[in-house]
Amino acid sequence: MKLKTMTMEWTGNELILIDQRKIPLKEEYMTCKTYEEVAIAIKEMVVRGAPAIGASAAFGYVLGAKKFNVNTFEELKEKMFHVKEVLANTRPTAVNLFWALERMEKTLLNFGKLDGIVEKLEEEAMAIANEDIEANRRMGKFGAKLLKDGDTVLTHCNAGALATVDYGTALGVIRAAVEEGKKIKVYADETRPYLQGARLTAWELMKDGIDVTLISDNMSGWAMKLGKINAVIVGADRVAANGDVANKIGTYMVAVLAKRHGIPFYVAAPTSTIDLNTKTGKDIPIEERRHTEVTHCGGTQIAPDNVKVFNPAFDVTDAELITAIITEKGVVYPPYEENLKKLFEE
Amino acid sequence: MKLKTMTMEWTGNELILIDQRKIPLKEEYMTCKTYEEVAIAIKEMVVRGAPAIGASAAFGYVLGAKKFNVNTFEELKEKMFHVKEVLANTRPTAVNLFWALERMEKTLLNFGKLDGIVEKLEEEAMAIANEDIEANRRMGKFGAKLLKDGDTVLTHCNAGALATVDYGTALGVIRAAVEEGKKIKVYADETRPYLQGARLTAWELMKDGIDVTLISDNMSGWAMKLGKINAVIVGADRVAANGDVANKIGTYMVAVLAKRHGIPFYVAAPTSTIDLNTKTGKDIPIEERRHTEVTHCGGTQIAPDNVKVFNPAFDVTDAELITAIITEKGVVYPPYEENLKKLFEE
Repeated sequence: MKLKTMTMEWTGNELILIDQRKIPLKEEYMTCKTYEEVAIAIKEMVVRGAPAIGASAAFGYVLGAKKFNVNTFEELKEKMFHVKEVLANTRPTAVNLFWALERMEKTLLNFGKLDGIVEKLEEEAMAIANEDIEANRRMGKFGAKLLKDGDTVLTHCNAGALATVDYGTALGVIRAAVEEGKKIKVYADETRPYLQGARLTAWELMKDGIDVTLISDNMSGWAMKLGKINAVIVGADRVAANGDVANKIGTYMVAVLAKRHGIPFYVAAPTSTIDLNTKTGKDIPIEERRHTEVTHCGGTQIAPDNVKVFNPAFDVTDAELITAIITEKGVVYPPYEENLKKLFEE
Repeated sequence: MKLKTMTMEWTGNELILIDQRKIPLKEEYMTCKTYEEVAIAIKEMVVRGAPAIGASAAFGYVLGAKKFNVNTFEELKEKMFHVKEVLANTRPTAVNLFWALERMEKTLLNFGKLDGIVEKLEEEAMAIANEDIEANRRMGKFGAKLLKDGDTVLTHCNAGALATVDYGTALGVIRAAVEEGKKIKVYADETRPYLQGARLTAWELMKDGIDVTLISDNMSGWAMKLGKINAVIVGADRVAANGDVANKIGTYMVAVLAKRHGIPFYVAAPTSTIDLNTKTGKDIPIEERRHTEVTHCGGTQIAPDNVKVFNPAFDVTDAELITAIITEKGVVYPPYEENLKKLFEE
């Protein structure tokens, strides 16, 4: 079984990831032959973006299962609890990681025997990956209806092909609108400290020939005030049952500003990102990352030695600020508590 | 006549400026012996910050007057029109630049003769510089009353000693509160693209032993939501007659967020920054700077080659978002149209 996209390649024996830390200056790849290498790739952000992390972890789980020379299913099961733990302990906020690992573990436990288990797990990981691409394309079609010909869309961070297995969530909606023949322009926040907007969103949109303008994070409010923005679309790392959305730090600010300017604020997220077990945004753990991300930029020190830093990687946007959530099952409007639940009842 | 502060030194024959592009990694100085060199220093942001630009331009004007070997006052007057133009054509938004040059020109024209004119102009430039320090100290005293012991203050960009001749406007208020014995913590936005917060505010507050925490620009909203911020204080490049304030790009966003969280938003600005001839924010020209400021950070390229960029250096914060404007004549509350005018009537 094989899969190859811009973000990742599964050869059957290894997971090859484009090194997202190096884009756009270099196009380098990291080859993961073990689950430990996949865990490092997730933790160190070689691969990032909630859906891409989920699929990578699934392939990492397969690599884990391939590794062990065991005699009984019970033995394998024990070992795989550890594999799951290592992969889960990489990043705390994106729920797709845990969702994909749960799904892999369930497949393992349901299969219940040693013979053929690796093939079964590989099938499941491939299904997770292919379903993600399919979900993004469906999300794109639903979301594209919300955009008008001539719109300029602001996006934050990278919720593009690189954040998913392929096509993207927020950028998938933009791609779908462009494929329908609509003329869409994009404003991309650079997204400090990790610069996913400047590095990844600008890069992949330019590759696709989509009109993109780069701004610093503190310019989006002014761009809105000048009337340059018609809609905001972002991705999500976790959607709580009440519609609160955890996403890249800065998303909350953009949502507050969109509200002030009467600009619709959309979240594009597959149902794998929606976690009904998380009641509200208050229950979502927010990762705090290392201080050098803020004191440095592009590898250069930009702040005094030993300055104190606060570096939350995500924030939570209140459901009341969100116009709609675009999923692969359709566009969900408030009241979210009620309408998100319906997605899982069908 | 001599003057020496952290920001600038006037030796009588030259203006020596700390090179603010190099802080905090290097402490280098630029010595300006001609008015053209002062113009370059302002344009290239060796010196920045509205009051610092104003005082530098005044000393540049003196250097201009020293230069010419003329026989009549009329000849000098002609030459000085050109000097003023060169110094004025450096940056468009901060009104202190034009205010200081007008004041110097008025001094020239009122003096009306050649003999002793250089000394007269030098006296005036020294007065502008010393009045700025005095104004900042008075502003500090008035503003400090607005802060409580234990407050954490968010600031954007650098409205500190480095943005003025000495002591600072927004940071002057914080310094004054600390001098009164209040325990004040500061959150500093890094302030992309030029990083005045990360480089200058963090540096000068750490030098003074004031507790400062650095954040990326997109983190201030989340910090407010987490209850970490009790007040916002920023500087200004121009205050319009109706109370609209032009200041570093991103100020508007911070003001919108402060409003949402019920956090007071203060502007600290000497009356030299208030321009009653500018009716509203719409009449303030907003400088757009070069694209490499956004595509690069700390000297490193962070975005794809040839990406489109929007890089406004300032934005306008609506008067309705501003709790009060702290001046050297006292704290001004709404209605601004009425109350700002009163400052100039006394």
